Amino acid sequence: MRFDVLTLFPEMLEAVLGKSIIGKARQNEIVEMVFHNIRDFSKDKTKRVEDYPDGGGLGMVMQCEPIYHCIEYIKSDIRVKPYIIMMSPKGKVLTQEKAKELACFENIAIICGHYEGIDERVNDLFVDEELSIGDFVLTGGEIPAMALIDTVVRLLPGVLKEEGSHSIESFSNGLLEYPQYTRPPEFMGAKVPDILLSGHHKNINEWRKYQSLKQTYEKRPELLEKLKLDKNELEMLKAIKKEHRIEMNIDK
Amino acid sequence: MRFDVLTLFPEMLEAVLGKSIIGKARQNEIVEMVFHNIRDFSKDKTKRVEDYPDGGGLGMVMQCEPIYHCIEYIKSDIRVKPYIIMMSPKGKVLTQEKAKELACFENIAIICGHYEGIDERVNDLFVDEELSIGDFVLTGGEIPAMALIDTVVRLLPGVLKEEGSHSIESFSNGLLEYPQYTRPPEFMGAKVPDILLSGHHKNINEWRKYQSLKQTYEKRPELLEKLKLDKNELEMLKAIKKEHRIEMNIDK
Repeated sequence: MRFDVLTLFPEMLEAVLGKSIIGKARQNEIVEMVFHNIRDFSKDKTKRVEDYPDGGGLGMVMQCEPIYHCIEYIKSDIRVKPYIIMMSPKGKVLTQEKAKELACFENIAIICGHYEGIDERVNDLFVDEELSIGDFVLTGGEIPAMALIDTVVRLLPGVLKEEGSHSIESFSNGLLEYPQYTRPPEFMGAKVPDILLSGHHKNINEWRKYQSLKQTYEKRPELLEKLKLDKNELEMLKAIKKEHRIEMNIDK
Repeated sequence: MRFDVLTLFPEMLEAVLGKSIIGKARQNEIVEMVFHNIRDFSKDKTKRVEDYPDGGGLGMVMQCEPIYHCIEYIKSDIRVKPYIIMMSPKGKVLTQEKAKELACFENIAIICGHYEGIDERVNDLFVDEELSIGDFVLTGGEIPAMALIDTVVRLLPGVLKEEGSHSIESFSNGLLEYPQYTRPPEFMGAKVPDILLSGHHKNINEWRKYQSLKQTYEKRPELLEKLKLDKNELEMLKAIKKEHRIEMNIDK
């Protein structure tokens, strides 16, 4: 898989996506990433890439032409049209499901906006999909692009050392992850739950499933609505709800 | 305002939050940021910060102690307890509203997890709030921390050159932003809408309001449900819906 990113700040992406698990995936040639500075594709003498908004208003708008030339360069380099994503607050909100879809593409190009926005004709003429990471306003598309790439690359075969690591992560089974503990067994009076030190794997797995449901019920109950729970899980959920009612009565 | 970030990758944060609008806000001393390497606070000879999960399982879990020592260091440095946020997929999802709340704090510390997670006792003992940027799985809390900081810092007085810039951004009035255009007036056959070149400001403002409503209706209709539209906006929305029905008939 290859990502091409069109940005005014290629060094930001390199600093974040050159390290840790994603950096290793690149070293291992599971994924290739090329960060293009849009400014390099400006035909203007001063390497201008933005201009005043038509109709007036504050800020500057990124122009079509440098982005067009950059896309043409990428197409000639990879000899295929990549799937072109615009990071934009107007896009569909990224989810783990969407990331799984995107992990099937061979070539994805991501356009990162800055300033007040990008000339709308970039969207009309070139973009296959607008994606957002959430309902909050950022300076540019770079941080959202990093989030998208990180999420997608983790799903590629061979990226996580232990393939099983996916299955216990939050959202991968629709639930939040159970709480984790490690040494020391007691820290500032707070103890690791006895069951985790018992060595009894069946009980540990039951406890973790229960905690996973409990975290989801307490923190993101709307996630439960989308799930088909089995009989055992429904029993657990009943117990969790009962536990809550008891806690609330004690609080009174 | 000051942010302290607890991370295993301080250089990632520096690379992203040292540039552009956020970098300038730091230079102008509107906001201070200190990125702490959690590893520097490990008392272990090998600077270990993680250990195997209690109860078994894949991956490694970040330990309480180095994080505790880092928090103590921050507290002694700023002489106050910062508001402590954990970036975590289990947290409440960040929104522009939440960012506005956070912009009122003087001191925020953000803990970025890695590996399979962080010992749950860190949450129990130190964390005031868990925040997520969305329902997708990332390698660590660094990208979410950058998103949070970028969003909050943009709201601080003096950060955006033109204070009015906020008010036209997506979400700031509950609507998506209207489309922007700049030179050239024609690009690959695609023209800037005539009205934007008319110089008639009242009409331009009307057109922009209409387009803003239209983008929201087409791309994120659920945002409209939360809004109180005035009479003029409701008329526009009616026209947009009509326009849609006509378009759909033509498609048939």
